[in-house]
Amino acid sequence: MTELKNDRYLRALLREPVDMTPVWMMRQAGRYLPEYKATRAQAGDFMSLCRNADLACEVTLQPLRRYDLDAAILFSDILTIPDAMGLGLSFGAGEGPKFARTIQTKADVDNLPIPDPEGELQYVMNAVRTIRRELKGEVPLIGFSGSPWTLATYMVEGGSSKAFTKIKKMLYSEPKVLNALLNKLADSVTLYLNAQIKAGAQSVMIFDTWGGVLAHHDYPQFSLQYMHKIVDGLIRENEGRKVPVTLFTKGGGLWLEAIADTGCDAVGLDWTVDIANARARVGHKVALQGNMDPSVLYAPAERIEQEVSDILAGFGNGSGHVFNLGHGIHQDVPEESPKIFVDAIHRLSQHYHEKCND
Amino acid sequence: MTELKNDRYLRALLREPVDMTPVWMMRQAGRYLPEYKATRAQAGDFMSLCRNADLACEVTLQPLRRYDLDAAILFSDILTIPDAMGLGLSFGAGEGPKFARTIQTKADVDNLPIPDPEGELQYVMNAVRTIRRELKGEVPLIGFSGSPWTLATYMVEGGSSKAFTKIKKMLYSEPKVLNALLNKLADSVTLYLNAQIKAGAQSVMIFDTWGGVLAHHDYPQFSLQYMHKIVDGLIRENEGRKVPVTLFTKGGGLWLEAIADTGCDAVGLDWTVDIANARARVGHKVALQGNMDPSVLYAPAERIEQEVSDILAGFGNGSGHVFNLGHGIHQDVPEESPKIFVDAIHRLSQHYHEKCND
Repeated sequence: MTELKNDRYLRALLREPVDMTPVWMMRQAGRYLPEYKATRAQAGDFMSLCRNADLACEVTLQPLRRYDLDAAILFSDILTIPDAMGLGLSFGAGEGPKFARTIQTKADVDNLPIPDPEGELQYVMNAVRTIRRELKGEVPLIGFSGSPWTLATYMVEGGSSKAFTKIKKMLYSEPKVLNALLNKLADSVTLYLNAQIKAGAQSVMIFDTWGGVLAHHDYPQFSLQYMHKIVDGLIRENEGRKVPVTLFTKGGGLWLEAIADTGCDAVGLDWTVDIANARARVGHKVALQGNMDPSVLYAPAERIEQEVSDILAGFGNGSGHVFNLGHGIHQDVPEESPKIFVDAIHRLSQHYHEKCND
Repeated sequence: MTELKNDRYLRALLREPVDMTPVWMMRQAGRYLPEYKATRAQAGDFMSLCRNADLACEVTLQPLRRYDLDAAILFSDILTIPDAMGLGLSFGAGEGPKFARTIQTKADVDNLPIPDPEGELQYVMNAVRTIRRELKGEVPLIGFSGSPWTLATYMVEGGSSKAFTKIKKMLYSEPKVLNALLNKLADSVTLYLNAQIKAGAQSVMIFDTWGGVLAHHDYPQFSLQYMHKIVDGLIRENEGRKVPVTLFTKGGGLWLEAIADTGCDAVGLDWTVDIANARARVGHKVALQGNMDPSVLYAPAERIEQEVSDILAGFGNGSGHVFNLGHGIHQDVPEESPKIFVDAIHRLSQHYHEKCND
């Protein structure tokens, strides 16, 4: 295997010494880049872009050519698994995802197949292999999946939702149906992420985008336990190196202790959490990823740098911090902002790492 | 003035002894009731219903005829103030609110008038007076307003939003414009709530529905300080009785200490917060309102009662708890569920109050 030229991201996730704080951006391959829009137009629609390994590789690499990012993330969608289960995913122009079929009953759940990662989902593994080859060891590649709860919200609601009434109705009136669905999804995600790791992903992340809509006592039961099950089933070492796993529940700031207790390596934070407080609460167990409000990238350079400086100071000395936005980058940020952001992190973080590297 | 026959709600907000835990439901006058739909159809559209004091009174009283609720809440909309400022509020069929004009610049803010509560907003005060008269002292009447930040999100975005990119852009690139807008809104809300109190509201609540989308360091600066300013400017005693004020930031569970420090009487909780934990954090300063997930009302009776029982046990002995949902009641809950909910609270809470009343 090629040695990694820059392994800052993997080392920070394992809380090993680094020279500066690594950074990547959620949705870093995306519509804020004109070259992304061009490739997407070439592909036709969004899922065709995901299904074409060469084009998916191209858009994965695009942000790395512009910005000094410390990791690449597989270009794909969180809804590949439900799509491979046969629910018929589509994206209307300017709209969110829609499923042609939804899950309502126990029979619907029983009829769902567990997708074969090297069968229906082979296009994802092909993208991982292609990207990994083209990265030439520059930076590590992150694989990912949606969490079972988050996938289930789309499968039951039929798409995006505001109040999540259908899945909440299922949760409170048919909890066994929902648990059966979540169990099947946990098994599917485990297979899917392990296949990504075997195909070359050097770290994996689980996005629990909608965990934060759950009641405090439902979160452990309907989201976290299934992520825990996945963590327990993941390949944690490959190619002679640890494969760190990051869990991110948006809106999960009240539950960081429980998330850190799953045995994951890192916990993602959104911008509602003070990273200093998060480190005090769980930083002895896990690394932290985050957590600048993506909207700060609308601000002038000095404001972006101030925010970066505040978050770095909040985390403080030593390793265990992967800088990121608290959610995906917005599509209309000025093209120069990500560079200001990334460079500020590298420049301003060095003195927080000096002591540790002495 | 008529003596209140049931003042449990006001007493609980002031942490004075009560015989059982009081309850009301956010959006208790609403589409889950067939009689509401009939009155709304009679009014024509939503704003016409708000503007007609007799019909607004009628829908305010409807849920009290069905359920043993301990408070009435003025039927109105949170967007009456921006509408009275001239932004042109409308509700499309099945859609959220839309404003014909939005706020983008300092000049837009400077041109906004501060509405006269007994002028452009007199229809609200007329509704308060009518409802108060028709309540005949059965239970107290709650007045309310949106928070400055929450009102501003609609005024800048032009309606509902998912990512709040326009107002976040303003926050990070033109913070002075936003602060000017929030200041004007704080002054307007103070006048508006004081007018509601003079018209007969016996308690007021500020809904900060979108405070939870702010970064932890922005929340104090762009939402909480303006609610604090309002609390400082409110009439706190009227008709020889205290007028308690409740602040509710949805998604604000990480910031309860700061909310409680404003000098409000009570803090509203959504369902992501464990009420036992909330009481330990701030219950020595304020009462707590909440916090059942509204979706529990989809569940069978036993599940609803279990949830009520768990929340009551979480709060524990003594006064200082107003039971409520963590957000508005859903429009498609079974008609019998609210009765099961309300009756369970009264029945199951009594033994938590015995010691205090000895």
